[in-house]
Amino acid sequence: MAPRRARFYRMILTSAILLFTARTALDTLPAVWGDADGSVRILARLCLMLLAGDYALRGMVAAAAERPWSGLAAYAFSPYGVFDCIAVIPVLAGALFGWPSDVETAFGILGFLKLARYSPALETLGAVLLAEVRPLASSLFIMALLVLFTSALLYFVERDINPGMASIPQAMWWSVVTLATLGYGDVVPISPLGKVLGAGVGILGLGMFALPASILASGFTEEMRRQNFVSTWHLVAKVPFFARLQATEIAQVAALLKVQRVMRGETLMRSGDDGDSMYFLVSGQVEVTGRAGAFVLKAGDFFGEIALLESRPRMATVRAVTRCQLLVLDARDFHQFTAHSPEILATIRETAQSRLSAADPGENG
Amino acid sequence: MAPRRARFYRMILTSAILLFTARTALDTLPAVWGDADGSVRILARLCLMLLAGDYALRGMVAAAAERPWSGLAAYAFSPYGVFDCIAVIPVLAGALFGWPSDVETAFGILGFLKLARYSPALETLGAVLLAEVRPLASSLFIMALLVLFTSALLYFVERDINPGMASIPQAMWWSVVTLATLGYGDVVPISPLGKVLGAGVGILGLGMFALPASILASGFTEEMRRQNFVSTWHLVAKVPFFARLQATEIAQVAALLKVQRVMRGETLMRSGDDGDSMYFLVSGQVEVTGRAGAFVLKAGDFFGEIALLESRPRMATVRAVTRCQLLVLDARDFHQFTAHSPEILATIRETAQSRLSAADPGENG
Amino acid sequence: MAPRRARFYRMILTSAILLFTARTALDTLPAVWGDADGSVRILARLCLMLLAGDYALRGMVAAAAERPWSGLAAYAFSPYGVFDCIAVIPVLAGALFGWPSDVETAFGILGFLKLARYSPALETLGAVLLAEVRPLASSLFIMALLVLFTSALLYFVERDINPGMASIPQAMWWSVVTLATLGYGDVVPISPLGKVLGAGVGILGLGMFALPASILASGFTEEMRRQNFVSTWHLVAKVPFFARLQATEIAQVAALLKVQRVMRGETLMRSGDDGDSMYFLVSGQVEVTGRAGAFVLKAGDFFGEIALLESRPRMATVRAVTRCQLLVLDARDFHQFTAHSPEILATIRETAQSRLSAADPGENG
Amino acid sequence: MAPRRARFYRMILTSAILLFTARTALDTLPAVWGDADGSVRILARLCLMLLAGDYALRGMVAAAAERPWSGLAAYAFSPYGVFDCIAVIPVLAGALFGWPSDVETAFGILGFLKLARYSPALETLGAVLLAEVRPLASSLFIMALLVLFTSALLYFVERDINPGMASIPQAMWWSVVTLATLGYGDVVPISPLGKVLGAGVGILGLGMFALPASILASGFTEEMRRQNFVSTWHLVAKVPFFARLQATEIAQVAALLKVQRVMRGETLMRSGDDGDSMYFLVSGQVEVTGRAGAFVLKAGDFFGEIALLESRPRMATVRAVTRCQLLVLDARDFHQFTAHSPEILATIRETAQSRLSAADPGENG
Repeated sequence: MAPRRARFYRMILTSAILLFTARTALDTLPAVWGDADGSVRILARLCLMLLAGDYALRGMVAAAAERPWSGLAAYAFSPYGVFDCIAVIPVLAGALFGWPSDVETAFGILGFLKLARYSPALETLGAVLLAEVRPLASSLFIMALLVLFTSALLYFVERDINPGMASIPQAMWWSVVTLATLGYGDVVPISPLGKVLGAGVGILGLGMFALPASILASGFTEEMRRQNFVSTWHLVAKVPFFARLQATEIAQVAALLKVQRVMRGETLMRSGDDGDSMYFLVSGQVEVTGRAGAFVLKAGDFFGEIALLESRPRMATVRAVTRCQLLVLDARDFHQFTAHSPEILATIRETAQSRLSAADPGENG
Repeated sequence: MAPRRARFYRMILTSAILLFTARTALDTLPAVWGDADGSVRILARLCLMLLAGDYALRGMVAAAAERPWSGLAAYAFSPYGVFDCIAVIPVLAGALFGWPSDVETAFGILGFLKLARYSPALETLGAVLLAEVRPLASSLFIMALLVLFTSALLYFVERDINPGMASIPQAMWWSVVTLATLGYGDVVPISPLGKVLGAGVGILGLGMFALPASILASGFTEEMRRQNFVSTWHLVAKVPFFARLQATEIAQVAALLKVQRVMRGETLMRSGDDGDSMYFLVSGQVEVTGRAGAFVLKAGDFFGEIALLESRPRMATVRAVTRCQLLVLDARDFHQFTAHSPEILATIRETAQSRLSAADPGENG
Repeated sequence: MAPRRARFYRMILTSAILLFTARTALDTLPAVWGDADGSVRILARLCLMLLAGDYALRGMVAAAAERPWSGLAAYAFSPYGVFDCIAVIPVLAGALFGWPSDVETAFGILGFLKLARYSPALETLGAVLLAEVRPLASSLFIMALLVLFTSALLYFVERDINPGMASIPQAMWWSVVTLATLGYGDVVPISPLGKVLGAGVGILGLGMFALPASILASGFTEEMRRQNFVSTWHLVAKVPFFARLQATEIAQVAALLKVQRVMRGETLMRSGDDGDSMYFLVSGQVEVTGRAGAFVLKAGDFFGEIALLESRPRMATVRAVTRCQLLVLDARDFHQFTAHSPEILATIRETAQSRLSAADPGENG
Repeated sequence: MAPRRARFYRMILTSAILLFTARTALDTLPAVWGDADGSVRILARLCLMLLAGDYALRGMVAAAAERPWSGLAAYAFSPYGVFDCIAVIPVLAGALFGWPSDVETAFGILGFLKLARYSPALETLGAVLLAEVRPLASSLFIMALLVLFTSALLYFVERDINPGMASIPQAMWWSVVTLATLGYGDVVPISPLGKVLGAGVGILGLGMFALPASILASGFTEEMRRQNFVSTWHLVAKVPFFARLQATEIAQVAALLKVQRVMRGETLMRSGDDGDSMYFLVSGQVEVTGRAGAFVLKAGDFFGEIALLESRPRMATVRAVTRCQLLVLDARDFHQFTAHSPEILATIRETAQSRLSAADPGENG
């Protein structure tokens, strides 16, 4: 299967990058490998060959486009192409032309960026920095003001008695270390007045330096949520059950659903549990075992709705028989969901009724 | 009463675990107990016996199921069963077979996990880690990049003059300590350029390392809210007053109510206070003392609605005569609540009217 | 005027508490006052007499109730009564009976609690701690687990080489200092493995110890918002303009308005500014100076509505002629506000029309 | 062009301020400039002349008002006028009258405030501090309590053995350093009891000192959002497409849209991408290249709506041909947007239909 092979290739490549970076970092320790030096060197060369092979391969794939040269150039100058190059070429060139080992060290470390291909983190971070550039700049300006003024203050108070505050630039080191709540302790105010002012700076720092942290944090969270919404949205559009909805209704529904992935064999709910959510099966199959025997649900089916409609414990145990993707709907969101689309509520109700009758023929039938 | 006995057993067991863990930790201090050594040893054995007894008891209860062996296995391999085992068996085995005392220390500390049974914290944390695994992985990748690049930078700048940055791994220690805003001060940049870069790293750290903290914090808060909603939801379903509502309406109502528990004798409101919430009594009894004398309210009754309907101060003093569970409705949420269910508003209004007439026969009657 | 006198008394009392506490704290420095010792002592006695007088006065007022003894007891055993007592009696008793000066120091410091009367902070904090007791307990349990396990880990790794980790309790000191991101640097892992583990602990600490901080912070913010809502709510009920609304509608409106206080002479808006909010005057008077001359608005009037209805710059300058309390309505909330109460929108529109006609007779009349 | 010249002037002025401040700060390092001393001095004078010229110019512009003297006074006593003065006059006066160089240093640093003119950060911060003055005061009171009580506690425990805690004021230095999670390490509890208490203080600090940080952070975020809303609101009012909406509807719409600025030549979407937002062009022009050829859209037009209506990938590539301002509408908000204004939805639908027919004559026509 192609995806399994792709996963395997990715694992090999990731290991090669991690090993090569780790070796580069550790290599700066003198005599760290001892007798194993030779084997480590061979392993590093192997990793390098793998990375070089990957670079060549990707170049060839890019050159296999309609217009080979523009395809190759597009790859070579894309961020990922540059990262791939950095991880390989300078080290090879260094070995060939006898460049100093520092070049190898520097680029071996930078090669870690090649991993960025497999993580959305860098792109997300870039999007957040772009979106929040104004508030970030504002808080950096406030910080610069604070660092400048507090260091000048402490400089005037302690310049004659504290060698760490003998000039404003030196006092700025203390100021940053204090405002960032680092507190190395290599420079500390020593006069009573200096300590009173320093205490004030420490407290100011808590407030002021929390600004960029919280701006970044909330921007990152918001961006993550946006990405989640988009992927949920595309998933909802694929479920036949929601096919009757219009695109704008799908957006409403997608904002309420959460994606969940389960492994084969995982149990989703147990008969008798308190239930607080229902599930829509996007892909894969689950087995439902209740009083009325066991049956299998497939992509497009839903389950767990009875606990939301009737406020009673789960009536069946549900287990994934293959790897599954599910859309989960909380009790809290259920009423909003059904308020938006009464037809869907009717369908869910009917299914629940027929399932209840099947389970308790005498009671509900 | 069973619940009281259960609470007593729980208290005894918790004390035994705490004592045993504390003793294990303190035991690593040489000669810490002095002359009390003997008594401490006896106390520890007593605790161990209690824990062992608890393990045995739970095993027996598990074995009393329909299929004894599968019940026993289910307990033994459940997380709590494993924690129970860890707290007892290795220490006993160590005493029996003369294992080194380090084994006893290690497992005595791990035995603290047995307490997890009585706290939802670990399960909540697990759920949060699972739900937020992607953003957490993203921010860990960014951190790894930052640690790697900043340590390589400082290594190139200070490797010759700063023994704490003589290699990249050593500089990484500084880098983590700085990015985590720990600032031990055992390694500090000493050159002017190193300090300028170090200050930048300190500021970067504030932003970047705030990411996982805020992801975890918001995930934890969200999970707590979800759990609260579910428990409120089940509580609302039990109150006869809400029985006329459909399950989906109960979900709407439950999102607005908050659970409050009060001790016997606690005063819930005082006549003349400004009031900003009304209360539904889920269990227990309260005594209402107003101008029209005193009367007792029971589970299913509500009070405090007059202040929300008429915007006037509290007209009565309410005191809990037994331990009570209440559902509280804020003034802010009251209009949403009643907008959803006009019948309930009508009932509340009628009750308020009759209570007002009772209090001021001439004024409202 | 009574409120002015009350404010004066409050200022005097606050100063006396601050001076007395400061003197008590500074007194522990040997020979801190030098020649001023005598005057400081007299000042402290003066403050003490003031505090004692305040205690006596409050006692007398409490005893002036219907039932003197129960009134007095109610005061004496209320938290504020206890704080008042703590600030005075032990110091007086100490002077009388020759108690050691440590007693005076301790109670002089505790006397600072007397200030709590003038700040809602302690009550708010108490309410938050009560409301969030479960999540706080959960995160404390996780912390305890982390401290215990990380200190045991480091103890096993470094016990033989690091005197600061020679026992688990000693390692726990390092563990707390690291997890709280304090990083004193008095105990630091020294072996490579210890540093790797220590770095992990530092990163863990960021996430885990952020939990209680964020729980408290969000609880505090929520409580503040709730208190603001209640005070806005009571204010809205007082404005004649909103008198036609029912209590439940007032709650809707109150959630959208913000309270603002301005000093006499402050300018609220300038003609030509971009405007994004309208104002309701709760108390005080403002002077409106526009093209059609100047007029005065009184409690119950509103202004600034034209910019919200017509999306044009401010047409008049508004200045407070007395101290004013205002309710502010953002552009963002205006449509919600008017959607809830079409009558109010009609009134606002009419007023705006008549004002526009007055300003531009030819254009709108 | 005037705006280009204005930007140039602003750049020159900003550079002059930065250079002058940097030189002032670095000048406190003895012999920092070495042989370059002369050139630096000349550069500094040049900067000073620029700043003085700017001050004079602004004064002249202010004096060119109807009433010269009141215009000049209004400028001179406005915050920015004062900042402009601080940056120039004291330094000039110092050179003239031979004031000590400390005056020059102090005012050279304060001159950095002149930059505030170009950043909204200080005004935003001021607005936040004003709006949150009560919660901030509350948390400062709690902090003061904590500092006082924890320092008194540690003083009683360690006064005889720890020179850093020999008096309460000295212990307060430790207390602030610990509660602010600075942890310099210059004063550290040394007795076992002191360490236990100190660990507790460190944990308390995390919670308590997080309060002002989170209050400021959330206030800052809220203020930023408010400012963004107002600027979006004014932008929406300018787009002809929204002209048919009433002011209150514009407020609804503005709350959903986000402003985005793109450079000339930037690509906004690529054919085949998954799309999750539509765009309204406020100013500038974009080129749309699809199957039906290329066409240009101008201010007032919109694009990207097909992906939201039909849930299919982008059908065209859009590139900015000039600098553009856009209003972006997320898929998540699209349904809310169209629910508020069905006419707009109809218009969008028609445009989408005609574009689809143009692209696939056979399929849709």
